[in-house]
Amino acid sequence: MGIGDDCAILPPTEEQTLLTTDLLVEDIHFLRHETRPEQVGHRAAAVNLSDLAAMGARPVATLLSIALPNDVSAEWAEGFIEGYKAISDRYGVALIGGDTTSAPTHIAINVVAIGSAPVGRAVLRSGARVGDSIFVSGPLGDSGAGLRAILEHTERTEAVERLIAQHLCPEPHIAQGMALASSGGAHAMMDISDGLASDLRHILRSSGVAAEVDFALLPLSAELQEVATAKGWDMRSLAVSAGEDFVLLVVGDDNLPDRVPYPLHRIGRIIEGKPTIVWLDNGKPTNYDKIGFTHF
Amino acid sequence: MGIGDDCAILPPTEEQTLLTTDLLVEDIHFLRHETRPEQVGHRAAAVNLSDLAAMGARPVATLLSIALPNDVSAEWAEGFIEGYKAISDRYGVALIGGDTTSAPTHIAINVVAIGSAPVGRAVLRSGARVGDSIFVSGPLGDSGAGLRAILEHTERTEAVERLIAQHLCPEPHIAQGMALASSGGAHAMMDISDGLASDLRHILRSSGVAAEVDFALLPLSAELQEVATAKGWDMRSLAVSAGEDFVLLVVGDDNLPDRVPYPLHRIGRIIEGKPTIVWLDNGKPTNYDKIGFTHF
Repeated sequence: MGIGDDCAILPPTEEQTLLTTDLLVEDIHFLRHETRPEQVGHRAAAVNLSDLAAMGARPVATLLSIALPNDVSAEWAEGFIEGYKAISDRYGVALIGGDTTSAPTHIAINVVAIGSAPVGRAVLRSGARVGDSIFVSGPLGDSGAGLRAILEHTERTEAVERLIAQHLCPEPHIAQGMALASSGGAHAMMDISDGLASDLRHILRSSGVAAEVDFALLPLSAELQEVATAKGWDMRSLAVSAGEDFVLLVVGDDNLPDRVPYPLHRIGRIIEGKPTIVWLDNGKPTNYDKIGFTHF
Repeated sequence: MGIGDDCAILPPTEEQTLLTTDLLVEDIHFLRHETRPEQVGHRAAAVNLSDLAAMGARPVATLLSIALPNDVSAEWAEGFIEGYKAISDRYGVALIGGDTTSAPTHIAINVVAIGSAPVGRAVLRSGARVGDSIFVSGPLGDSGAGLRAILEHTERTEAVERLIAQHLCPEPHIAQGMALASSGGAHAMMDISDGLASDLRHILRSSGVAAEVDFALLPLSAELQEVATAKGWDMRSLAVSAGEDFVLLVVGDDNLPDRVPYPLHRIGRIIEGKPTIVWLDNGKPTNYDKIGFTHF
């Protein structure tokens, strides 16, 4: 049952239903005149689908609420919907409801993503055990470097363009999440939204364990290395603190990479202790001062 | 499974799951300094629960996203949550997830209400049949009069206070909706949010029928009659066009009032024809020019 009645209707299900929501506000989460509306639409859907991926759920449907000020053009709204629908179609996700209203000054967008998973399949944050390995499902820091390139008006080389695309149009790791959840070897999982340092701590706190993470093991893209070296940007702090990479952070069995058909990069291991991270550099202890991530 | 993981989890269900969402923005849907935060919290939950009531669903849970500018006090946020929780608790609705973020200037609030109904029980807009009676589950126009009293700084008599309370703290007709849905005699239903004239047309269009509505049958509260008479306000236009009463508009069997233990006021009947409303006054045809409802 789609848009038209007061509510959307989902059929009975033998699976668990997963729900997640994100509210994006202009000038906090995106800049209207620095991004194309298609990119904002893509991103609004992507960040929510990534939360489903983070638990290994299959995406089913979304609800979209949007508040538009008078000075937003019809073209902007159409572009937004185009970007939103393109990624939704790609993941077979139906838009089943929502709300549109006016706004005094800033665009506000709320997306709800609804997913499904067999009972007991969804991977929580609380399952990390001492001895587990820690993996990420893709490179870290690209999104943060892309944002910095936008804000600093960095010259648009090919590598810079790819970092910016990574920031504006992140791709949720849906298939990776589902494969990891059904492998049985993933004990705790989430997506990297606030940054590795902050997000891993959520798993540690939920699981009551500590972690050792080695800077030398963090996967850094060729583009990040090229641009960060040229511009003198600290690529480790981008990788650890900038966030919004929307790759998966997964804790589980050592042989997890052999059990899913997607790249997994081992970055450390779970150890006993209070929920803090011991940072290593090529196996040697190092001091790391967390650099906080702030929105624009 | 509550807040903490990337998604909220609902268990398997043999019922249909109903979902509805509303986005409220400061200065469009509420005035921060004319309303108490508890009232904004109540209203944000109430308008969504009313959408569940409109289909006869049992409310189960909500998701709450809120974007707060820097100049919103902690007291405001606490008051908001207090109002939101009070009504949620009253209807046994759990807050299972959400998002909090900052905003540049205006508060934005998105609520998702999740409900449940046996398969085939939910009442759609499309079931009105020629010969059906049209009912409302409570008085019309109180909310519109309350809003007008706020905006015109009308002297706060007891009657005015009650109209304002009706506007700020509408009570969703949850029990009425569930009783109507399970009676089997309700063929089409929705809640009055945009106003009777506008909302009834939704049912007419979905059902492919016309309606006859008699002004003399519209239930008007004693408070509305007292205040509108004293101030010279057109109470019929408030009743028909102002909206936000959040009573139920239900189309069904003539004897529906005998089949549910709640007041139902018969206001007209479904006739053949294009989806328009024929307005009567004590059974006699009358001209009615729809007065549009505009937000602040």
